[in-house]
Amino acid sequence: MPQDTSYTHQKFNVIGTRPKRPDGIDKVTGRAKFGADTSAPGQLVGLILRSPHAHATIRKIDTSKAERLKGVKAVLTSADLPDLTDGDRAMLDILENCMARGRALYDGHAVAAVAAIDAQTAKKALKLIKVDYKVLPHVTDVDEAIKPGAPIIQDWVFTAGVEPKPKRPSNISQRTEFGHGDVEAGFAEADVIVERSYKTEQTHQGYIEPHACLASVRPDGSGELWVTTQGHFTFRNICSSLLGMDVAKLKVTASEIGGGFGGKTHVWMEPVALALSRKANRPVKLVMSRDEVFRATGPTCSTSVDVKIGAKKDGTITAATAELRYQNGAFPNIWGMLGAMTSFACYDLKNVKSIGYDILCNRPKVAAYRAPSAPMAAFGVESTMDLVAAEIGMDPVDFRIKNAAKEGTLASYGPTYGPIGIGPTLEAVKNHPHMRARLGKNQGRGMACGFWFNFGGQTCTDLNIGIDGTVTLTVGTVDVGGSRASLSLIAAEELGIPYDQVITNIADTASLGFNDMTEGSRGTFSSGMAAIFAARNAIEVLRKRAAQMWEIPVEAVVWEKGEAKAMGKKHGNLPQLSLKEIAAKAPNTGGPIAGHSEVVADNAGVSFASHICDVEVDPETGATKVIRYTVIQDAGKAIHPDYVEGQFQGGAVQGIGWALNEEYIYGEDGRLQNAGFLDYRMPVCSDIPFIDTQILEIPNPNHPYGVRGVGETSIVPPLAAIGNAVSNAVGVRLSHVPMSPPRILKALVEASGS
Amino acid sequence: MPQDTSYTHQKFNVIGTRPKRPDGIDKVTGRAKFGADTSAPGQLVGLILRSPHAHATIRKIDTSKAERLKGVKAVLTSADLPDLTDGDRAMLDILENCMARGRALYDGHAVAAVAAIDAQTAKKALKLIKVDYKVLPHVTDVDEAIKPGAPIIQDWVFTAGVEPKPKRPSNISQRTEFGHGDVEAGFAEADVIVERSYKTEQTHQGYIEPHACLASVRPDGSGELWVTTQGHFTFRNICSSLLGMDVAKLKVTASEIGGGFGGKTHVWMEPVALALSRKANRPVKLVMSRDEVFRATGPTCSTSVDVKIGAKKDGTITAATAELRYQNGAFPNIWGMLGAMTSFACYDLKNVKSIGYDILCNRPKVAAYRAPSAPMAAFGVESTMDLVAAEIGMDPVDFRIKNAAKEGTLASYGPTYGPIGIGPTLEAVKNHPHMRARLGKNQGRGMACGFWFNFGGQTCTDLNIGIDGTVTLTVGTVDVGGSRASLSLIAAEELGIPYDQVITNIADTASLGFNDMTEGSRGTFSSGMAAIFAARNAIEVLRKRAAQMWEIPVEAVVWEKGEAKAMGKKHGNLPQLSLKEIAAKAPNTGGPIAGHSEVVADNAGVSFASHICDVEVDPETGATKVIRYTVIQDAGKAIHPDYVEGQFQGGAVQGIGWALNEEYIYGEDGRLQNAGFLDYRMPVCSDIPFIDTQILEIPNPNHPYGVRGVGETSIVPPLAAIGNAVSNAVGVRLSHVPMSPPRILKALVEASGS
Repeated sequence: MPQDTSYTHQKFNVIGTRPKRPDGIDKVTGRAKFGADTSAPGQLVGLILRSPHAHATIRKIDTSKAERLKGVKAVLTSADLPDLTDGDRAMLDILENCMARGRALYDGHAVAAVAAIDAQTAKKALKLIKVDYKVLPHVTDVDEAIKPGAPIIQDWVFTAGVEPKPKRPSNISQRTEFGHGDVEAGFAEADVIVERSYKTEQTHQGYIEPHACLASVRPDGSGELWVTTQGHFTFRNICSSLLGMDVAKLKVTASEIGGGFGGKTHVWMEPVALALSRKANRPVKLVMSRDEVFRATGPTCSTSVDVKIGAKKDGTITAATAELRYQNGAFPNIWGMLGAMTSFACYDLKNVKSIGYDILCNRPKVAAYRAPSAPMAAFGVESTMDLVAAEIGMDPVDFRIKNAAKEGTLASYGPTYGPIGIGPTLEAVKNHPHMRARLGKNQGRGMACGFWFNFGGQTCTDLNIGIDGTVTLTVGTVDVGGSRASLSLIAAEELGIPYDQVITNIADTASLGFNDMTEGSRGTFSSGMAAIFAARNAIEVLRKRAAQMWEIPVEAVVWEKGEAKAMGKKHGNLPQLSLKEIAAKAPNTGGPIAGHSEVVADNAGVSFASHICDVEVDPETGATKVIRYTVIQDAGKAIHPDYVEGQFQGGAVQGIGWALNEEYIYGEDGRLQNAGFLDYRMPVCSDIPFIDTQILEIPNPNHPYGVRGVGETSIVPPLAAIGNAVSNAVGVRLSHVPMSPPRILKALVEASGS
Repeated sequence: MPQDTSYTHQKFNVIGTRPKRPDGIDKVTGRAKFGADTSAPGQLVGLILRSPHAHATIRKIDTSKAERLKGVKAVLTSADLPDLTDGDRAMLDILENCMARGRALYDGHAVAAVAAIDAQTAKKALKLIKVDYKVLPHVTDVDEAIKPGAPIIQDWVFTAGVEPKPKRPSNISQRTEFGHGDVEAGFAEADVIVERSYKTEQTHQGYIEPHACLASVRPDGSGELWVTTQGHFTFRNICSSLLGMDVAKLKVTASEIGGGFGGKTHVWMEPVALALSRKANRPVKLVMSRDEVFRATGPTCSTSVDVKIGAKKDGTITAATAELRYQNGAFPNIWGMLGAMTSFACYDLKNVKSIGYDILCNRPKVAAYRAPSAPMAAFGVESTMDLVAAEIGMDPVDFRIKNAAKEGTLASYGPTYGPIGIGPTLEAVKNHPHMRARLGKNQGRGMACGFWFNFGGQTCTDLNIGIDGTVTLTVGTVDVGGSRASLSLIAAEELGIPYDQVITNIADTASLGFNDMTEGSRGTFSSGMAAIFAARNAIEVLRKRAAQMWEIPVEAVVWEKGEAKAMGKKHGNLPQLSLKEIAAKAPNTGGPIAGHSEVVADNAGVSFASHICDVEVDPETGATKVIRYTVIQDAGKAIHPDYVEGQFQGGAVQGIGWALNEEYIYGEDGRLQNAGFLDYRMPVCSDIPFIDTQILEIPNPNHPYGVRGVGETSIVPPLAAIGNAVSNAVGVRLSHVPMSPPRILKALVEASGS
């Protein structure tokens, strides 16, 4: 039955309150069970051997000595992972990334694995595996990779999206183009044109918890996987497919997750753990070190971006173009496409064109990282917006307001917007006290805008009412940011009962229908929508049971404020029946009361944010400190404002780290030089000011409560906002992220020297 | 929506086949995770201090020294378990059985508990707890307990079911009476009357796996429990109620279970584990020793039974009465009532009366044990049946056939039977080759009948179809005997797909609606019924999706043999769509495909069995060996014949142990003298012949596939069948179970000496 997803304009009782999240205490006291926190009788320790070369042919792997070592129960190479992908190249890429197939494509690429009775034995065994490499030329820089003569990473990759079809393999896996109008004509109309190139370095999500899993495959081919993941149903489908298992025969349980931010949407070693278990006929625990996380899981892209914007003196943008080169690592993906789609999404442009390139390098396969691809595009576009505003002498906020997209705008990436929040966030920036705060010496202020699509996807939810009227909401979206609290609020709202009567539980894959991952800011949006429908179904049952208890027709029963109410002259004086009263009688009125929902939660609302940032730059060292930061974002409806604010703050902090310090540093040898938190500089608490937030609520018309996704957009503006603030502070514009002390110092020296 | 439960008379495809159970290999290789096989970060070891006295007042418990011991994180007494039962005496009994409240009521009664960082510390701590007991007179024998002057176990117990209401407390907690007709008149009509008294001793279910759990209560009052149980939903409801938790806030996961047989339908220490965890603010693992299992979990009743049967010379029974005294342990229950209800259920009697007494003793609280109460009643009745047959010179099988209940019989316990299997099992006995096997010296043959009600109850099932068309069936009934295989067969049958495409999973309490326990032989019956309904609901969705794919009306789509078929002239030539094909398109046709069912599975079919047994008695030692054994039982429909036969065999073996050797032996001091498998003699493999089985299938008209419960009835006849065989072998009739070598020798000596 298709469900009504329309926004209901209702007044909320519990939505918008701020109860504590149920996992909070466990997580801060160490009781929560993360990926490494479970065990099974007879389990083995798994370890992975990784390539020290950025690019090499693997001539031979001799595992015989390792196999003979006492305590070693399985040694695994790609020979144990036959290609069952039936021509599905994307699936084969996943498999090959988990375990090299004749070629090591980046420093850290898995080439073999062992399972042994303890870690010491497993380490010894790794050392006994002899790999005969033939080292090949490599390339790790996105611009170098597309130069003529660059080593070709994947000889089966021919640039898609160009005509005529190329005859030679290329490191450009795909070219995509978005936009409308006539940009040439637009630029011809412009009074001012600014054209500029930008570069951003590769960063890692930096989640606290390394990847970890416990895999157990039985002799009958069925198995279980306990894993830290953003999407255990997707992991189930991918792993079962790669290993030739029936989907129903692999049960995946999501542990508590110590951060993911997109990096736990991909399998990195889970198929290896399962294959080791299958070979050893024992459970296998596989836990990555931080070094492995950096070298062999998915950071974001490094990029190289050219932006050109033309405007009239009145501030009207006449044309805008961007060319965006996204480094995908060793396997093709769509990151450049997403960059091209998001680049100009904030603006209402007559003539716009963005071209995305996905480019292969000898680096690890890139993963999603919070609004993946958007921050780098925004860095280029929003930096250029400030340059254009300066050229025409207009306030940068006013300039953006003048060009902001609104309801009815044809977005640069195709769709026509419904009601959206970019204009309101910009107005809020203008009115925010932050904009009037005094700035001191070497301090500057910048702002920038950001956009993210958000996603809905497949979602299943069960709602079961206990004998005491307390409610279990069963969902399949991993809780990365407090969604259990938000979903309990939603079910409580719909049923008309207090928050603490609803407990939300993340089911394993054997106990619920398929759920897409917690990504695309879809957790609260889609599971919340399914929870509303499940609650509505349960209310239908509750009405029937009340009718049965009263012995009146169900049509005469309405559900109001958590109670069944008999309607009409004939029954109107019956005392109301609470959910608790009906639940207590359930065994005698037909059994347990439940509601279920399986949906494709389409129509996730797009999300916009505007950030304001103040920095202080030390002209002696180039060190930059963020001294004041404000996030203003449209949440649609903030179900649990604390966790909405938390998302706003968390994204901003990650953006600050990216903007100022974080970067993958590769040596000439193609090896990652800073695969650890000592050398990869993430912001710590003392680096960051309190991040102020302002939630706007422009309801998503296609969600009953108006919800939009809120988790990702907040990482989009910081790079540009900080770049604009640095420029405002010290008069030099940085076009290379991170704006680390050496880069800023160099820019200052160059500026003063010129 | 009420579902159609009628028997469908369909021809089966997979029902009746014998695929391997999915848990089999794990269980024999030790990989399965039982109650003690999980752990949590920071878990403590729990231990329980138990009363060495059968009856005592607890004046004081000094826990101060234990609390001061380093490594002790919590010491618990009943003071930590306040009475929250709000006058519900049965609930308070459960709590008091878990932890004594001022009185120790039996040897082994829990009086205190500790949680410490390791087992050694916990043991030390137990020794440091000082309990000041005032020992009271005790009684452990059921007949002694009702003599005047016997110590009163519970001073709040006044015999229920008698008029006028008694003024003094009594160890008889309840008197119940069943029957119809005029027994006095009936006996007056009889040509022969036999009256005889019997006694049976207390036995334990003897499951391999001791009770074990891991409890974790969080500071916010929510918690988790991993436990070996026959009913995790019931455990959740009881534990949450006793501890004052919301039902939805306690998540209970059932481990694999190493046998239960009724003994794991009660909580014994789980509330203590939860309370320890709550007090210590750490997870607590509590694992019983075998000694604790014997002393402090629930064995079956010891009994004392009087039976009187009158018959005409033509074999017609004119009247039958029984008085049944069931020892309940220290807390009142309904075991005597069940004995009275089952005693004459096999027969079509004009005049019948049975009176049950529930009697308290200073023994552990009695638990269900496979067809609880029926074997002792059957021992009396079926022994007496043979005596009557002998008196009138009729073959005992013919005598039973003449009086067997049939469709339309008014059962002695109230209902009128539908189609039933007692007559057919007796006919099968007559025709069975076993009856013609030659008997040697000191060998004899006996037979007996048995009955069990079976039970339906509350049941929830979810069915989810994966992207590859494999199916996950989620049920809430613990698998004690292969029900996962049976339930997969049922769902596969209904969907029209192969068995191995359906995987059945036992969900935790947070992922499914309430399910009654796996008891009353309800697992396959009730979850099977719910699985059928869930599959039918899923088929409705599949038809809709096929209609959508074809763009034709859903009414034109039928489901046949696992495929959607378009009907009618207009659409009839569309190629059929398999479940796999529809499943593959689900993301684009509306999302995941599922079916759900919440039912009260009423109308479980009653079950009857007839057993044949040959024994050889060593006249020198009194040792009896069962040399041939056949179970003939009506299964309704045998879903998975292997596991039906396994139930038949398992029950017979347990009955053989009970009949010949097993018994609780109490000393004069009221202490259990044989709390271990060395001194409590369970049959081992070499004691038992191959148990032959014959499945009859008289469909239950109220189950779509005709299923009846099959798990319990097989333990009912063995006591009497063996008694009858011993009598046939050596000419002495034993009226006291177990018929252990000393008892048989004594009877032989007495018989030869008289």
